[in-house]
Amino acid sequence: MDYQALIDEVYQEVSSMGLKGKVADYIPQLADIDPELFGLALVDLEGNIYGAGDYRKEFSIQSISKVHTLTMVMHVFKSKLWHRVNVEPSGNPFNSVAQLEYEKGIPRNPFINAGALVITDALVSKYENPEKDIIDFINDITGHKSVKVNELVHQSEIDHSDRNMALAHFLKAHNNFNNNIDRVLDVYTYACSLEMNCIDLARSFSFFANDGYCIFAKRRILSQSHNQRINSLMLTCGFYDESGEFAFRVGLPGKSGVGGGVAAVLPGKFSVAAFSPQLNEKGNSLKAMKALELLTTKLEFSLF
Amino acid sequence: MDYQALIDEVYQEVSSMGLKGKVADYIPQLADIDPELFGLALVDLEGNIYGAGDYRKEFSIQSISKVHTLTMVMHVFKSKLWHRVNVEPSGNPFNSVAQLEYEKGIPRNPFINAGALVITDALVSKYENPEKDIIDFINDITGHKSVKVNELVHQSEIDHSDRNMALAHFLKAHNNFNNNIDRVLDVYTYACSLEMNCIDLARSFSFFANDGYCIFAKRRILSQSHNQRINSLMLTCGFYDESGEFAFRVGLPGKSGVGGGVAAVLPGKFSVAAFSPQLNEKGNSLKAMKALELLTTKLEFSLF
Amino acid sequence: MDYQALIDEVYQEVSSMGLKGKVADYIPQLADIDPELFGLALVDLEGNIYGAGDYRKEFSIQSISKVHTLTMVMHVFKSKLWHRVNVEPSGNPFNSVAQLEYEKGIPRNPFINAGALVITDALVSKYENPEKDIIDFINDITGHKSVKVNELVHQSEIDHSDRNMALAHFLKAHNNFNNNIDRVLDVYTYACSLEMNCIDLARSFSFFANDGYCIFAKRRILSQSHNQRINSLMLTCGFYDESGEFAFRVGLPGKSGVGGGVAAVLPGKFSVAAFSPQLNEKGNSLKAMKALELLTTKLEFSLF
Amino acid sequence: MDYQALIDEVYQEVSSMGLKGKVADYIPQLADIDPELFGLALVDLEGNIYGAGDYRKEFSIQSISKVHTLTMVMHVFKSKLWHRVNVEPSGNPFNSVAQLEYEKGIPRNPFINAGALVITDALVSKYENPEKDIIDFINDITGHKSVKVNELVHQSEIDHSDRNMALAHFLKAHNNFNNNIDRVLDVYTYACSLEMNCIDLARSFSFFANDGYCIFAKRRILSQSHNQRINSLMLTCGFYDESGEFAFRVGLPGKSGVGGGVAAVLPGKFSVAAFSPQLNEKGNSLKAMKALELLTTKLEFSLF
Repeated sequence: MDYQALIDEVYQEVSSMGLKGKVADYIPQLADIDPELFGLALVDLEGNIYGAGDYRKEFSIQSISKVHTLTMVMHVFKSKLWHRVNVEPSGNPFNSVAQLEYEKGIPRNPFINAGALVITDALVSKYENPEKDIIDFINDITGHKSVKVNELVHQSEIDHSDRNMALAHFLKAHNNFNNNIDRVLDVYTYACSLEMNCIDLARSFSFFANDGYCIFAKRRILSQSHNQRINSLMLTCGFYDESGEFAFRVGLPGKSGVGGGVAAVLPGKFSVAAFSPQLNEKGNSLKAMKALELLTTKLEFSLF
Repeated sequence: MDYQALIDEVYQEVSSMGLKGKVADYIPQLADIDPELFGLALVDLEGNIYGAGDYRKEFSIQSISKVHTLTMVMHVFKSKLWHRVNVEPSGNPFNSVAQLEYEKGIPRNPFINAGALVITDALVSKYENPEKDIIDFINDITGHKSVKVNELVHQSEIDHSDRNMALAHFLKAHNNFNNNIDRVLDVYTYACSLEMNCIDLARSFSFFANDGYCIFAKRRILSQSHNQRINSLMLTCGFYDESGEFAFRVGLPGKSGVGGGVAAVLPGKFSVAAFSPQLNEKGNSLKAMKALELLTTKLEFSLF
Repeated sequence: MDYQALIDEVYQEVSSMGLKGKVADYIPQLADIDPELFGLALVDLEGNIYGAGDYRKEFSIQSISKVHTLTMVMHVFKSKLWHRVNVEPSGNPFNSVAQLEYEKGIPRNPFINAGALVITDALVSKYENPEKDIIDFINDITGHKSVKVNELVHQSEIDHSDRNMALAHFLKAHNNFNNNIDRVLDVYTYACSLEMNCIDLARSFSFFANDGYCIFAKRRILSQSHNQRINSLMLTCGFYDESGEFAFRVGLPGKSGVGGGVAAVLPGKFSVAAFSPQLNEKGNSLKAMKALELLTTKLEFSLF
Repeated sequence: MDYQALIDEVYQEVSSMGLKGKVADYIPQLADIDPELFGLALVDLEGNIYGAGDYRKEFSIQSISKVHTLTMVMHVFKSKLWHRVNVEPSGNPFNSVAQLEYEKGIPRNPFINAGALVITDALVSKYENPEKDIIDFINDITGHKSVKVNELVHQSEIDHSDRNMALAHFLKAHNNFNNNIDRVLDVYTYACSLEMNCIDLARSFSFFANDGYCIFAKRRILSQSHNQRINSLMLTCGFYDESGEFAFRVGLPGKSGVGGGVAAVLPGKFSVAAFSPQLNEKGNSLKAMKALELLTTKLEFSLF
């Protein structure tokens, strides 16, 4: 399989489609980005890199970090975590508080904001220096210094965190939150403010395509069973209330972020990351989603 | 009309019914109350007092204070307030956050918690010393020193305010909250922690029965129009999602509190307060509601 | 009180406001009406009539008939009916099926469509010739032949009744529907297709203002208690999810219809009907609502 | 891989767990089944059959037929169908009408009842003799006469179809229903009343595991792309509001029915069917679900 030719072809086709979306503007640091940026990178299981466009440009990974932090607590918590957060698709916007009320403080899944707050609360309970430990973990699984926090974004996220504060207090009211809310929100927004480029983001997802073993860290990150479960979660819940559409059209486990990034894996084959800041109305990157759809359409193999 | 005989009759009948409910237990200070307390007091428009049972016993007025604080800001804000809070019955529990999400941060009415938080936010904007001003206002409309705060209840309310914190942050996320959240919650829980007896609570509602003029303060508190509007709000929204039932069976504008109190008025005739800590499943006092139902059934006149 | 001068003044002021709404167009027979029609009529408790504008023009009373049919079964059923339909404001659009699902087949109140279907089902159970009996009842309470059905509207309502069919089947699935669905829908749409003018509509509401005694039929229609309860229901639930707003601004028990009519009462004083086909976004007549608001503002007396 | 040993092991383990659920009782014909029945059968891509327990016992396939009927119209409609029904997980019970209201008559996916009604409506539009064509289709893909309708169940389903009638009328009110409602409900309940045993049910799912080519019919049933999309839909939506849980624990595309059956596939490997009438609270078979979970846990390979 000539991945480079494939990536180039996908890049050209998507670029020529004239897709127009809306850059996230809830904080000024995200709104200021060049809307025309677009890149993608594929990393196979030998670690070869294939990229096109702005695939070396760093961007805010935002909610994609929810997969990294979930991985960090899977290891620690095992099954106990799943009493505090469910594994069902939400069918509602990512920051909905209504569903949390109907279901008495148990978030639908770990990738909506309420669920990720529970995950971060668990992470703060178990790690000594959560911010440093997150950085160390991501650097480890990419095999080099690959990630840094954007402090302006971090501060701005904190300044605009009223909805997440509402979710956290609501979780606490239901006894599903153990640590200081400000502290957890600080770590939560820190993880959302991380910046990576497409190569490193794809590398950080490589072990998901490899049964849980990371070729860059040269160690097992997740048991095969845990690895399958996170892949399953990404397939059913990775794209908010557009998860079914992504599974239907693309068919890969993946996760999007409001910064315009998408990371996904084809188990046994490769990991891939795409980035373009223009979003559709569900908050997912138009070009990145389309790039992955074309990629799987052109490939012979599929999850199903 | 022999109000004293009427009150006595109602007291006897309700006492003999064996009604059993559940005392509020979300904070220990409320849970510790003697569940058998029951009293009621009626105040006519000449200021005569008719009471039965534990009508001189002080209790936590809780949400009944929402009517007092709304009155304090009606005077200041006039119509502008109604861009921030609606006047429709909620049809949902008093502390629902789901409805607030569906309606984009505009609370259904000023008597559900979200609406009362907006009212308190407005009050904090306009009054120099909100706590003192609330006390002064209530003392003024009862004509003597009638109210005090229970500091243990106040502290405990603050310690159990996660749901209200969630509502406040959600309001702030929708730009419907102007002041520091902790400060507003402090005032909000202060007002909920006020203690009065049935006589003084009925006196504090007297002007609602008298077109807005208070015979105890010897001054107009609300314009006739504002007075009618608050009475209308109490009739349609005063008893959470049991408001229709109360209007249907009792037919008086009124307001309940989770401490077991209910205050109501028959315009042109009298104000009345009843108190018993055992609540029904909607959070309204079983005996106090039944007492007011019997009262209007036995009386010849009615709102309708 | 010079009611004729008052009515004229209200008519002139509302006419000069340039209010613009949208005529109901879900069936062609309603859409074809002259949108500029506007009339109002007041009937005092001696039976004197005061009118302005198109107050002698007949129009489709639509949901206002729900009050007449409820009155017909109040007499028959007494309290048993209230196990099948609640008395709470809905807080949702008049034809919502979602709320009916959440509340397991018990409609919120008798004036939303689901509730009115239960009422009509009860009426079909108890009356031999429902259509004729409805006509006879309304003629009786207006004191002369005052109402007729528009068969074109009736047929068109039947042809567009899928939402109501959905509600009826849902009620049946919850064992809250006893008769043949097509038969009940036929009677339901028949009542919605009745036509009256403002004078007769006001006359038909006169007994609600008179403690349940009808001066035209020269007999008691409802007990004082039942009369108060229907008035209470109209105040809290008579204008769909705008009921709170109407109570707040107007303060009268009343009922609106999608044909542009509104009927209301001031207990002890008068009944009133207004009509203009241009509706606001909640489905209530803009000019008729405004006319009643001005009327109560200009009057000295009020419910509260 | 010794599939027979695996199937036997799974059968023994699940049998010894003492799982207790509730047999569907909304119609008497389902309630009368022996609750202790339990069987499973696996069919590999060469057509070899491996079974255990009551795997030759016929049972009511109920909603599993929704996959067959969807397959029949995929072929005819291609992409046009997806304007009428979405592909997102529902997050709500299978017969919810509330979600349909919020989303304006577009069902969440083709496997909830509202979506399956749209599919059946499309099927009635395109097939001359829908009942016969469904039977012929299933017989074709199993390679022999494998299915028959239980007329008692069929009649009973019709007699208990008020909720589905409500959904159909609601769809029609939103212009998302083209045929006579009674006719479509007749076909819909017919498909739900089909009976198969585990072998034939697994055979009927074989082509889903084989890129769309059926070894029994000896022809392509679905294009590779359509096949992947139905597999994706089964993974994200096949088990009502327990779909995420099934994907998380089992990780196979599949579909359950209220008769106690489950059918699933491992693409490239096999199809499998299990049956036991005792259901969990979500309406899925307790033992069948557990059997598939054990099966994938014991196997080396997985979708992810």
